[in-house]
Amino acid sequence: MPFTPITAEQRFVLDHVVRVRELAATERFAAASDDVIDAVLEGVGAFAAGEWAPLLRAGDTVGARWTPEGVRMPDGYAEAYHDYVDGGWGTIGVPEAHGGQGLPFAIQTAVLDTLGTANMAFALCPTLTVGAIEALAHHGSAEQQRLYLPHLATGAWTGTMNLTEPQAGSDVGALRTTATPLGDGTWRIKGTKIFISFGDHDMAENIVHLVLARTPDAPVGTKGISLFLVPKFRLDEDGRPGAANDVRVVSIEHKMGLHASPTCVLSFGDHDDCVGELIGPEHGGMRAMFTMMNNARLNVGLQGVQAAEAATQAAVAYALERVQSARAGGTSRDAVRIVEHPDVRRMLMRMKAQTQAARALVYYAAGQVDRAGSGDARARGRLELVTPLAKAHGTDLGNEVASLGIQVHGGMGYIEETGAAQFFRDVRITSIYEGTNGIQAADLVGRKLALGREASGGGVFAELIADMRDEAQDARLIALIDACEATGQALADASTDDRLAASYPFLTMVSVATCGWLMERQGRAATDDAPFMRMKRACVRFYLEQIVPEALGLVAAAQAPADVLYAVEAELFAE
Amino acid sequence: MPFTPITAEQRFVLDHVVRVRELAATERFAAASDDVIDAVLEGVGAFAAGEWAPLLRAGDTVGARWTPEGVRMPDGYAEAYHDYVDGGWGTIGVPEAHGGQGLPFAIQTAVLDTLGTANMAFALCPTLTVGAIEALAHHGSAEQQRLYLPHLATGAWTGTMNLTEPQAGSDVGALRTTATPLGDGTWRIKGTKIFISFGDHDMAENIVHLVLARTPDAPVGTKGISLFLVPKFRLDEDGRPGAANDVRVVSIEHKMGLHASPTCVLSFGDHDDCVGELIGPEHGGMRAMFTMMNNARLNVGLQGVQAAEAATQAAVAYALERVQSARAGGTSRDAVRIVEHPDVRRMLMRMKAQTQAARALVYYAAGQVDRAGSGDARARGRLELVTPLAKAHGTDLGNEVASLGIQVHGGMGYIEETGAAQFFRDVRITSIYEGTNGIQAADLVGRKLALGREASGGGVFAELIADMRDEAQDARLIALIDACEATGQALADASTDDRLAASYPFLTMVSVATCGWLMERQGRAATDDAPFMRMKRACVRFYLEQIVPEALGLVAAAQAPADVLYAVEAELFAE
Repeated sequence: MPFTPITAEQRFVLDHVVRVRELAATERFAAASDDVIDAVLEGVGAFAAGEWAPLLRAGDTVGARWTPEGVRMPDGYAEAYHDYVDGGWGTIGVPEAHGGQGLPFAIQTAVLDTLGTANMAFALCPTLTVGAIEALAHHGSAEQQRLYLPHLATGAWTGTMNLTEPQAGSDVGALRTTATPLGDGTWRIKGTKIFISFGDHDMAENIVHLVLARTPDAPVGTKGISLFLVPKFRLDEDGRPGAANDVRVVSIEHKMGLHASPTCVLSFGDHDDCVGELIGPEHGGMRAMFTMMNNARLNVGLQGVQAAEAATQAAVAYALERVQSARAGGTSRDAVRIVEHPDVRRMLMRMKAQTQAARALVYYAAGQVDRAGSGDARARGRLELVTPLAKAHGTDLGNEVASLGIQVHGGMGYIEETGAAQFFRDVRITSIYEGTNGIQAADLVGRKLALGREASGGGVFAELIADMRDEAQDARLIALIDACEATGQALADASTDDRLAASYPFLTMVSVATCGWLMERQGRAATDDAPFMRMKRACVRFYLEQIVPEALGLVAAAQAPADVLYAVEAELFAE
Repeated sequence: MPFTPITAEQRFVLDHVVRVRELAATERFAAASDDVIDAVLEGVGAFAAGEWAPLLRAGDTVGARWTPEGVRMPDGYAEAYHDYVDGGWGTIGVPEAHGGQGLPFAIQTAVLDTLGTANMAFALCPTLTVGAIEALAHHGSAEQQRLYLPHLATGAWTGTMNLTEPQAGSDVGALRTTATPLGDGTWRIKGTKIFISFGDHDMAENIVHLVLARTPDAPVGTKGISLFLVPKFRLDEDGRPGAANDVRVVSIEHKMGLHASPTCVLSFGDHDDCVGELIGPEHGGMRAMFTMMNNARLNVGLQGVQAAEAATQAAVAYALERVQSARAGGTSRDAVRIVEHPDVRRMLMRMKAQTQAARALVYYAAGQVDRAGSGDARARGRLELVTPLAKAHGTDLGNEVASLGIQVHGGMGYIEETGAAQFFRDVRITSIYEGTNGIQAADLVGRKLALGREASGGGVFAELIADMRDEAQDARLIALIDACEATGQALADASTDDRLAASYPFLTMVSVATCGWLMERQGRAATDDAPFMRMKRACVRFYLEQIVPEALGLVAAAQAPADVLYAVEAELFAE
């Protein structure tokens, strides 16, 4: 697959959507000068193109393999991962106090965007490490931070998140893994976790498992959950990886895609000798988990952007090369490149516009992480609100664009060797993991819609509506913003069932409105006649003219009560 | 995978959408009594459940394999295919004169629906044979019909369609395979064809390749194409398969799905000894191909229905069994089956409603085949109009529903062993082959919208609008019908570029209107309180309340001119 770094687009989005210069003007992010940002974007682009993109196909065809000695990555992955560590790409967004470069999360997002566009499954490994860093940075003890964070920051050690058990998927509170105090401050961990991405591999010196477990006599449900740090290799007196801990890879899943990401079944404490440390307070696991998962949700939304970008690049390259059929209605009988045919061009324009929209949404959310981290309460609320949008809509768009990518390729798109199918298979999981998109929609209409809301209205949702309305100029976009506001108000007062039944179409409406707002803003900023700017303006126009009106078609569903769903009893669905 | 025959739904759609009793009242279809129809539906349901559904997984995991001696199907396929032949399931829709049962095409559609829901890739083999039968029945000589049709009718011999070449995909006129007269009425065929489904296999006594080729000095483009019959084994004096013809399977494709369907590269005449017969007149290939392909397009639309039904059955079964999380807003803390959660229920309802809608659309078109075949000119026009809708929208819905099927399964949906992923992978090709869905949209706004249209308006499109408006009662549906009419009128007078740029959203709008019309009709007919009827009414309500309004969101795109797509030159898409 061809891979072209997307430096100009990233820089533009950082400037006009993230408004990174506002961040750079603060003491905390003073290091984020224009020159540094450009150097990071160009550097990681060259690195990803040179070292990670060439491994994409082998990741799919060979994939990660289970062996009795642990998981083996395809040839070349370990070396390319070491070069990632040596290049310092893992340290971008980590605070300087923990061995990082202290650049904004939004810059780290751009770095992960590039790496994942080159090779999404591979980039999932550092993505998970970011979650472990966040959890430790916010909830770990000083000693834990000292021992673990510098190695996680470089990526020399990688992180995992261990939530899911066979009976506990979306319902984390149902988990059964236990942690028993050993009397010396450490805990004995016992249980089985499934769906653990990069739960084992041969690229890093150590793997830091963050494991949700239940302590003795803990309350039932989520209130009784605690978070534990369980290293693959216990640390010796010098803080180096020493004796193996009692953690075993039972198997890896046979998945539809993302084959370079080993999805492990991990067994903790088969020999009653799995030792872990508590992170944060006992029974504080859910809070720590949410710290770990919230940014993880943004990073999964970013995977949607990555797949969309990769699929678009492949489809554009094919459409610029493949010659087939004369242009309809034209005078020439000569066959033309398929990019010239209107419906192919429509698909490509849609792919470009939706990819840009998804990127704007996710980067925007990333910018709120940085503002919230500096104590901006309004940004904290905005981040909470847009996180489910970025995760769910970002991945929905990744799926849509990857499917269009196959369609542009015609019959060749269905042949695996072409490569378009891999993006489509790889991205499909992103709508499911880190909280299904349905869970995101429930989060939006449940917790997030009510956030900061008084009886008189207001709150974080009203603030977003107000910000969008202040800036929006396009009549269709304004109509969508109005519809979002009215629907949001109706849902805030609706019954739980009605609210949940309407949650998904509502999430899509609000996401498209947010994207439309950020796209229109970019259109205004794209003032010169450079090729990138001209393409940006065309994408913005297409988005406002065609995609925003589509979202208005969802109003009926977003305002429909739940009763149609319960008009018949569950068993009748089998009729 | 569980597979439940869908007899009640099929019978209901035959009664109220196809209005099969109107057909049975004609002399031609007098055999299609109520009892016969019921016996066929129940019989094929039991057969498919017992013999074809159990082979679904092996079709995917083992798949068809290329060997130097030809393609080998997975174990069990040859036997299950022989039982299909012995059961007479291939003969349903074939005229009695050609060895068939002479039942309506709509009944044959129901039979293929059942077989393909049990095992879509397998059912593609008889589907292709239907195309060969149609081509020979309409364009073959009496001798060709006598020698070939009875064997094709039973399925003892199977058929293929050989159109595509590496440089000639959607642009069939670019093909280069040659046919040279041998002086004895036969022709020497030479060339390479790609993407030939069931181009070879080990289930039938003979394979009848229908091959588009160019005769000496033929005009360029589609006008110079002729259709040839090229048997795998030439017939001996008794009309039995004898000496092998010079047709070789070079390879089979490595596809994302549909692994039980061998997609062959066929080489004709490597040793200059491939002999074929002309079907119909020289240079009459396109006409014969369209005969073969038009019903094939309906049958591909039907594959969308098959995948949707199979995915829905699997998702419903899972949701009725999987217990996870308490019901939000309820008083109980006990976990419930996920079917009880509103957003899961919304997905299931959408799957049910969209599957029913797709089935109504495709069966409706099939009913027009029967009417058109009896000389009803109005039905002929209607069939021409709805064929691209049935093909494109039927397969679009198959893709949508199969994706929802994965989502309902959560993380398990991404694991291949679960089976949900297979439907998603299998159905993806249906939007591409037999004319991409973009080609269908072009056909709709090009040829079909103009069909029978005078300067004063009217024509087949106006007739459909009038029929829908006569019957529609729901205000949203009427609004959509109005929007379709207005958009159709605008497009009929638009430039070629504008028309094509708008073609895909327009196709979706008209398809949803047509489905809405047929769904509403079914809702009126579902009068009693049987479980099937209650579920039908719920699906109709959901369709009218939520899916019809969505299509109104496409009006902007369906009325947008092409200029946004050409605002920048093609190369800028790579920016």
